[in-house]
Formats: sequence, structure tokens, C-alpha cells
Amino acid sequence: MTRYDTISFLSDFGHDDEFVGVVKSVLRSLAPHATVVDLSHGVPAFDVRAGSLALARSVQYLAPGVILAVVDPGVGTDRRAVAVEVAGGEGVFVGPDNGLLAGAVAMAGGAERAVALTNPEYQLVAPGATFAARDIFGPAAAHLANGVPLDELGEVVDTASLLPGVLPLTRREGETVVCEVLWVDRYGNAQLNLDPDELDLPSGHATLRFGGSMRRARRVGAYGDIPSGEVGLVVDSYGLYSISFDRAAAATMLGLTVGTEVIVEPGDAPAVSTPVTLRTDGSPR
Amino acid sequence: MTRYDTISFLSDFGHDDEFVGVVKSVLRSLAPHATVVDLSHGVPAFDVRAGSLALARSVQYLAPGVILAVVDPGVGTDRRAVAVEVAGGEGVFVGPDNGLLAGAVAMAGGAERAVALTNPEYQLVAPGATFAARDIFGPAAAHLANGVPLDELGEVVDTASLLPGVLPLTRREGETVVCEVLWVDRYGNAQLNLDPDELDLPSGHATLRFGGSMRRARRVGAYGDIPSGEVGLVVDSYGLYSISFDRAAAATMLGLTVGTEVIVEPGDAPAVSTPVTLRTDGSPR
Amino acid sequence: MTRYDTISFLSDFGHDDEFVGVVKSVLRSLAPHATVVDLSHGVPAFDVRAGSLALARSVQYLAPGVILAVVDPGVGTDRRAVAVEVAGGEGVFVGPDNGLLAGAVAMAGGAERAVALTNPEYQLVAPGATFAARDIFGPAAAHLANGVPLDELGEVVDTASLLPGVLPLTRREGETVVCEVLWVDRYGNAQLNLDPDELDLPSGHATLRFGGSMRRARRVGAYGDIPSGEVGLVVDSYGLYSISFDRAAAATMLGLTVGTEVIVEPGDAPAVSTPVTLRTDGSPR
Repeated sequence: MTRYDTISFLSDFGHDDEFVGVVKSVLRSLAPHATVVDLSHGVPAFDVRAGSLALARSVQYLAPGVILAVVDPGVGTDRRAVAVEVAGGEGVFVGPDNGLLAGAVAMAGGAERAVALTNPEYQLVAPGATFAARDIFGPAAAHLANGVPLDELGEVVDTASLLPGVLPLTRREGETVVCEVLWVDRYGNAQLNLDPDELDLPSGHATLRFGGSMRRARRVGAYGDIPSGEVGLVVDSYGLYSISFDRAAAATMLGLTVGTEVIVEPGDAPAVSTPVTLRTDGSPR
Repeated sequence: MTRYDTISFLSDFGHDDEFVGVVKSVLRSLAPHATVVDLSHGVPAFDVRAGSLALARSVQYLAPGVILAVVDPGVGTDRRAVAVEVAGGEGVFVGPDNGLLAGAVAMAGGAERAVALTNPEYQLVAPGATFAARDIFGPAAAHLANGVPLDELGEVVDTASLLPGVLPLTRREGETVVCEVLWVDRYGNAQLNLDPDELDLPSGHATLRFGGSMRRARRVGAYGDIPSGEVGLVVDSYGLYSISFDRAAAATMLGLTVGTEVIVEPGDAPAVSTPVTLRTDGSPR
Repeated sequence: MTRYDTISFLSDFGHDDEFVGVVKSVLRSLAPHATVVDLSHGVPAFDVRAGSLALARSVQYLAPGVILAVVDPGVGTDRRAVAVEVAGGEGVFVGPDNGLLAGAVAMAGGAERAVALTNPEYQLVAPGATFAARDIFGPAAAHLANGVPLDELGEVVDTASLLPGVLPLTRREGETVVCEVLWVDRYGNAQLNLDPDELDLPSGHATLRFGGSMRRARRVGAYGDIPSGEVGLVVDSYGLYSISFDRAAAATMLGLTVGTEVIVEPGDAPAVSTPVTLRTDGSPR
């Protein structure tokens, strides 16, 4: 009785080693009928928060099935390995209970049932405890795809006990919103935790303050609409404001990284009619 | 009525973010029967020309089906999104009309029919217009694989109006040919836009001039036949001359990058019997 | 008569170029029923030994079928292209006869039959001899998956003539074992060619000497059990000791690279009660 035919797979394993390939070999051996969709394996090493955000950005687009997600610096310690069912069984998340799954699970409607992956019958025996994706998570995902009932994989745990994720909140200060860079993508776009429902920026300009600098940004609809040499504010494909340049890496050029605080103010700041740079440390840019 | 069971997929999305995985999730959701073959996602960001060359190098090896190709710095602007049918329907290219598809389409026999992807019924609704691979191109590819007729996806466009690609031409000057580095691959081989039909170099040596340097190169059949310390000229797997070293990155060591002009002359240059280096700027090498 | 439905694929092609995608397109065209599992394409360019180790680490987890492995600096020269059958036909390795396959073949029980891939009927015609994965190895893998008998692909070769792999041996000197870093993974763990059967380190500390330094390492069961600021010794998922930090790259911080000699001694060295660093060159750390 096959239950799922897609296993979506996200990790921080990178592509230099064979970690991804070995896990996929285990999936192929145990559940040959299932198709594996690699979501991303480029999550920065050990970065649970970045993996959690990538998973949350993806979740509404995933095919129904098992979602195997492994960013697991605590592998082999007493952090729990879990499987979490959502949406009446349309999806099951498999991974460490360290906050990685929390955002995506919430976006999928919340955890409905969960088990700790403690049943050794559904695990591989290994000489060391450092590769749970191969020995515990991968086999669990494959067995779920094969139709093994969730509660066969281990004891039921209270869904309220699952570790929550932590997302930075914005803060309104007068006309401005204090937000934070959530994600810098390959193109150097710096996504903020700010959406148009919270701060409407219909057209014209906004003023950005970060790292001692003040920059005027133009609100446009597409990266290619940003005039050369100007900073753009684009609502990206996830509905969040992104600080962008046309065909250049805004984050690199502006010194924005994940976690940088950015204060957004609608309109031009009183004294700012052209881009200026104020640095508290007096160094030139 | 399934029409295609393979979707070949090339992009400049890289592997750090989940862009590739999200598009493949969309393909999996809409056309679960189709197998996706990732051609490459390592095209340099925004580099339409590099993507076009990679696609052209690959096209004769692709399985029949849909070819989804996205290097799209103009996403969300008024550049057209298109689907282009070739070879009596054996293949359909889906991507932006920015020259990316042109070389491969020509190698596949030329565009026979084309549509602009304007029908919203075959697109995903999204809060921002920055991820057309997910919202427009990917769904179009999936629906084509499912058998949706080409002209359902949008209005027919004149194939003569599709943006052509631009490939650098060589130039003969006396005994020499002035060419250009088209591609530097992972191993540091520098492929030239020069093939043996244009300049026969049967054996022995040729003289290369570039960046103020002159180098003697040995014409050999395989990288491993290049003597240690010498520059080799190999006809590569695409039938073009490549400047190579044995087990070392010729491009890095010689300072060759995409676009470097290289003048090739058969035989040893009169005054050159051992590799010498002449630099116009007088700096040592 | 289909024989294999999985082709596992390892190479040093990287992900920047379309090499992997072209080979997979050839596999898809010739053997559309087969699923390709990418084991890794991140083997360092030209590094046969690293590829051999990655393949050996993976082999026990592979699905039955064809294993296509290409790290092939001698492509186009007279090194042989081979297919090697193991385990009563449960698996067939396809690749260059340069030592790449040797370790994995041995772990799979040893070569039972082998052929040189010399039959041009099962190869693609190409203008240059530099891409054997596309023109020779890939087609051979696909035809084997399709049920073509091994000895159709070329003449039988004596399995004893296949090039062996070379693995570094450890050396016991009194209480210590002289070993070597085999692999540095993405997380900076430095795997040694040393397992608990050779040197039991049940708990407490061991002393490591390398590159003129001496470091105390704590024997723990998981990376997350290594106290902050200490060096850990963990039995990794392959059963070998690994020098690790908690959530940090031990190899980078300790200056360990593949091939570094490490002398392991059980217990604290007499004069060492806290981590100290002795460098023969007198330079600070």
C-alpha cells in the first residue's frame, strides 16, 4: 500500500560531498517508487534558521507527500528526531525537532500528529551517530512513502511540545518601520520581513537607514525597472519587500547581510534628495 | 493526453537558494508523470550569453520534450515570455525572449511556431512578478508536457520577431585567425570559437597571441597528451579548439577569460622556439 | 529486456557547467526507464583518489544497478574505459580504469567480470575525444541498464589487470598510531584512516600531534557533545575517527587538510593538561 510518491528533500549538506547522494540512494533502495525532489541543499552549514526560512518559502509549492528536511547540528544528541503530519495527512515533515520544521508546518496548517522516530526497526544500523539523514530520517521518509503508519515509527509526542521557530518581528516607530534582512539570495537581493500590508509604498521613493547609512530607494515592480545606479524596492515573489539593484548584487554593494536592521520610511527623508552615505565610523565608502 | 515525458531545465539559479527546487515542485505538482533533467543551474547570474551557449552545446543531446530555460534579468518587465516549437513538435523551448533560446533553437532546425505566454489560466498567481520560472515558465512547461496545445498558452507570435542570439565571428588576417574565448569550463579549458574546418592544425605547433603574450601551443588529441609545462590545443567534445593544460587550469594560468581575443597562427612564429612571454605593460609573469 | 532501473552517477564535473546534465540527457534518451541517482559531482577536479574514497564510502548504500563513475584526467589517452561486474551481476561499475573504481569494487566483493568499452556500436560519435562520460561511459551505462550483455560492450579483460586503488595505511609506534586525514567534509570534520578496532579510545581524552602542534581531544559520541572551545574525536557515520568541533570547521581552525599526518595517543600526554600549541617554526597561532 503505497501512500506517497513524492519526497521533497532540503538540507545543509551542500554538493561537495556525497551526503545528498547517499540519502537518495537509501530512499531509492527502500522506496523505489518515490520521486525525490531536491528543494535545496545549499542551506549554510549548521544554519537552522536559514533552512527554516527556505522551507517556509517553499511549502505552498510542494507536491503532496513526505518532506525530508535536515539541518541538524545536534545530530546524535538528545534533540528529538520527529515526523509531523499536516493537512489531514496530505504531507508529513520528517526532520530534527530543532525549529527547522516549525515555520513550514505552521504555514501548512499546523501539526496534527507527531511521533518521535525511535523505532529501530525503521532505522539503519550504523557505526556512528553522525548521519541521521541516512540512518534515521531518510529511512523514516521512505517507509512513510511506502505506507507505514506514522505511529509505527515511534511513540506519539504532543504537538504542543515541538520546538517553535523564531521569526523576527518588525517594529513601528512613528512613520518608520524597523525591520530586518531575512534572506540574501543568489542575485544579491535583500529580502526584508516587511510586506505591503504592513507598510504601503505605492510609488515614488522610500528612505532606508542601515549601518549608519541613509539611502533613497525607488519603489518599482520589477528588478529591470530599477534605474541604473539607484536602489530599488521590489515586492518579491513571496510578497515581501526586497532591496535590489538591476543586474547587480544590492546586498554586496550596500553591505547588507542576513540580520541587518533596516529602517524603512515612506517618501524622501527631508534632507535627502540624492543618495548620500553617512557612516558613524567616519570611513569612506 | 500526455505529450512529453521529459522536461530539460537550465537556469542561472545556482544551488544556494531553493529556486530550482521550487520550480521542480511546481513541475511535479502539475505534471507528475514528467521526468525533469537538470541541464545546468550554474550559469553565471544574469549572463544570458553564457546560458545561451550552454544550451546550444547541449541541444543535440537532449531527450525529446520540453526545454525550460531561464536566465532572465528582465523578469517582470515587458520582455516577452515565449514558447517556441521546433522539429515538428519534437521539442518546445520555454523561456524569456531575450536571446537565451536563439542559438539552441537554430541548432534544432529553427523556430516553427511560437506563442507569447500571456494566458493567465496557465500561470500561478503570485504577490510579486520576480519569479517567472515558478509562476509562468514552469507552469507552461508542465502544461505542454500534459498535452495542452501550444496556442492555448497565449497569442501566436511571428517567429521572425524572436530576439536573435549574438555569437562572435572569427576574422582571418593573412595566415592568422582572430578568435575569442567562448567558454572557460570547470577544468580551466578555454574553448575558442574556432573549429578545424576553419583552420586546420594537423600536428606540431601553433602560435597563440593574447593579452600582450605570445605562447607556443602543441596540437594534441587529448588533455593527457599535453606535455607537462606546455600549452595544448585540443579539439574538444564540441569540435572546437580549446586551450588546455594537462591536469591544470589553462585559463587561470594564462589569464584567459570569456571574451579574451586570441590570435591563432599555424606553426611556430619565426622568432619563437620556446615559450616566451611578451607583456605590453612590462610587468613580470 | 530491461536489466537495471537505477544508474548511480558520480563525477568531478561540478555544477557550473552542463556536463552532468548532458550525460543525464544521454542516459534519458537511451534508457528512459532508468532513474539516475546523483551520488556527487563535487569531487575536486582531476582528483581520482578523492572520487575513489567518496565512491567507497557510498557503495554499501547504493541501489542495485549500474554505477557510473567518472573522474578521468586521462580521457582520450590509452587508459582503458571499463565496465566491471560485481556481486553476481547485482551491480556493474562503469568508468575509467585508473583506480577510481577499485575501492568500491573491493567493498562490493571484488570484480567478477570486466570488459574494455571498445565496441563503437555502443558509443556516440563525437568530434573530439575529451568527453567520454557523454560518448562512451554514459552510453555503456544506459545500454547495460537496457539489458545489453556485458561482453557486447567490448573485449573481456582479466579482472586481475584492473588498476588497484591505493589507500594510506596507519602505522603503530609504541602507544601511538600514525594516521592521516582521509577526507575533510563540508562541516570541516577531518576523517582519519583509523577506526576503534585499531585503537580503542573509550572515553576521556586523547592527544593529537600534527603540523608541529599538540592538541588534547575529547572522545565523544556526537558533534553536539563537544564542549565549546574543545577538540572532539567522534566515530563518524563510516566508523572512522573524525576530528571535529561543535558547529565549527575543525579542519580549517586546526589547519588540517587531506593527507595531513596525525599521531593519535590515548590519554593526556604527560605534560598536557590544557590545550597547548607547539609549532616548530615558532610562529604564533
